[in-house]
Amino acid sequence: MSQSALVDAVLHGGASVQRRAIAKAITLLESTRADHRAQADELLTALLPHTGKAFRLGISGVPGVGKSTFIEVLGLYLIEQGHRVAVLTIDPSSTVSGGSILGDKTRMEKLSVHERAYIRPSPSSGTLGGVAEKTREAMLVCEAAGYDVVIVETVGVGQSETAVAGMTDMFVLMQLPNAGDDLQAIKKGVMELADLVVINKADLDADAARRAQAQIMSAMRLFGLVNHAMGHAQAQGPDKQWHPQVIQLSALHGKGVAEFWAAVTQYQALQGANGRLAARRQHQALAWMWERIDAGLKQAFRQHPQVRELLPQLTREVAEGRLAASTAARNLLAAQDRRA
Amino acid sequence: MSQSALVDAVLHGGASVQRRAIAKAITLLESTRADHRAQADELLTALLPHTGKAFRLGISGVPGVGKSTFIEVLGLYLIEQGHRVAVLTIDPSSTVSGGSILGDKTRMEKLSVHERAYIRPSPSSGTLGGVAEKTREAMLVCEAAGYDVVIVETVGVGQSETAVAGMTDMFVLMQLPNAGDDLQAIKKGVMELADLVVINKADLDADAARRAQAQIMSAMRLFGLVNHAMGHAQAQGPDKQWHPQVIQLSALHGKGVAEFWAAVTQYQALQGANGRLAARRQHQALAWMWERIDAGLKQAFRQHPQVRELLPQLTREVAEGRLAASTAARNLLAAQDRRA
Repeated sequence: MSQSALVDAVLHGGASVQRRAIAKAITLLESTRADHRAQADELLTALLPHTGKAFRLGISGVPGVGKSTFIEVLGLYLIEQGHRVAVLTIDPSSTVSGGSILGDKTRMEKLSVHERAYIRPSPSSGTLGGVAEKTREAMLVCEAAGYDVVIVETVGVGQSETAVAGMTDMFVLMQLPNAGDDLQAIKKGVMELADLVVINKADLDADAARRAQAQIMSAMRLFGLVNHAMGHAQAQGPDKQWHPQVIQLSALHGKGVAEFWAAVTQYQALQGANGRLAARRQHQALAWMWERIDAGLKQAFRQHPQVRELLPQLTREVAEGRLAASTAARNLLAAQDRRA
Repeated sequence: MSQSALVDAVLHGGASVQRRAIAKAITLLESTRADHRAQADELLTALLPHTGKAFRLGISGVPGVGKSTFIEVLGLYLIEQGHRVAVLTIDPSSTVSGGSILGDKTRMEKLSVHERAYIRPSPSSGTLGGVAEKTREAMLVCEAAGYDVVIVETVGVGQSETAVAGMTDMFVLMQLPNAGDDLQAIKKGVMELADLVVINKADLDADAARRAQAQIMSAMRLFGLVNHAMGHAQAQGPDKQWHPQVIQLSALHGKGVAEFWAAVTQYQALQGANGRLAARRQHQALAWMWERIDAGLKQAFRQHPQVRELLPQLTREVAEGRLAASTAARNLLAAQDRRA
């Protein structure tokens, strides 16, 4: 298939043709071959004008919190409302082991076979930065194909939550009802990323869920993530803007899903009107560009023959306190300037 | 003065000779001239075997918290105990304006004229990374000259606290007694860095200070920075290690300074014995090396003629969503590879 035929099939193909074209496009984007990469960049540039119209929703939570169940219920609800839903995954374990925390084939049985849904597992190798890049690009392909809600999910492990928050319009953190009993379980850094905290399995223990909701809310206030005076109501002032909320639901029983989506819609309306959504996307795009530049510079540095020759010894000398770190850095940078 | 004479004067000079040699060495290290930089690296390498024996204490707090008063009282106390004290400063405002939050000439009047103290203000220009590098290097010069307590102070603004925690053995956060009334004032990120929190001006309002102490301690517990079961006592178990504490003092009235130093000494003993101090220094040295390498790579990238030509336009296209960030990054990296 030619490049332009592939673009056309992604943009306008009928159900099964489009689905195959998306898979083919993403496979091309994930390829590490240099000639593929050049084609992939052309493809991305051709698709880009057709992207950006979807709502990008990030969802994170520890294993067992019920992400798959929730995303399936949410996805089916959204399809019923007329949306098309893509679900992408960033699995940080895949970058280490090639294995997969999230790769369970039985996940989202109903959603995965629905013709208005597209589910793609995590790229199965590479650094987290590389995996995140592939997922961002896959997201653009899905948007060009007309999926208007893109869900990017990850487990609450490592830096993957930062990566997901950095590519989505809204970041949702899922918690279990016992979260309030042990606030240590709520990582500060992740809390700062959360636009919405969802307490799932709220039906298991209503008291615990209520307690968790109050305690997470008070922790967010304590650390200035929400306004002191702010309850669950959103600001009514002239600078109408979203403040993080904590809500309860039960994905298994389908309870609270409509309320969840109402909160998302309110977020989108407020942050769209006040310009924060557009600013967030612009910031994300530039941060992404610099992140990839940094990664590229570092990779070229580490692969440079002179650097590879010197690095082990200088690292040892710095670690043992026999060479100043700044001197070692200057020597290594100078080594890279001497072309092999 | 020859390089070896300068090294000798720093290591073994009499009071005034040594003081002039330190100043001269630090000026050399701060120079941006390439030939000076080569000499500076030689100097550092010659001094390095004589460094590492000082205790490195980082102190941070907002303007008005009483850092200067505290450091003067502490410095004089330490001199009385037989120590020699160097005080270095990282002023993040100097990297923007060349001005100085901390440059007040009337600061530490008694300490600054004491022959067993050496006080050096912040390097007055450069990026924060550059300023931090100069300060690290100045610290090594002071250590080689036999100062056995090096205090690095900064104001609680921007990233300078991370920089100071990254070059010291122990990081102390100073707070006002009303801190507990508004925990938003306590930045989460900084709290994580703190090995010890000091509530200064505790004499102003004993109730407020006690409340602040309890609330900061409970916030630290809440976020898992100290063990739930842990009071103020340190661990007695087999893995004896330091847990962050919160103490009160009044620098103005010289109250609590001996207790402060006792806590520092206990920290040093525990973390020295369990190996964490050595591990921290090794980690810092390697992180410093990579931080300088990253800065150097980024600088060379931004200064490359082809990159400078392309960057403004590609940045605009990425910001406006007309070019994928990853494509822009690849184009810019490729441009750098085409030698001008």
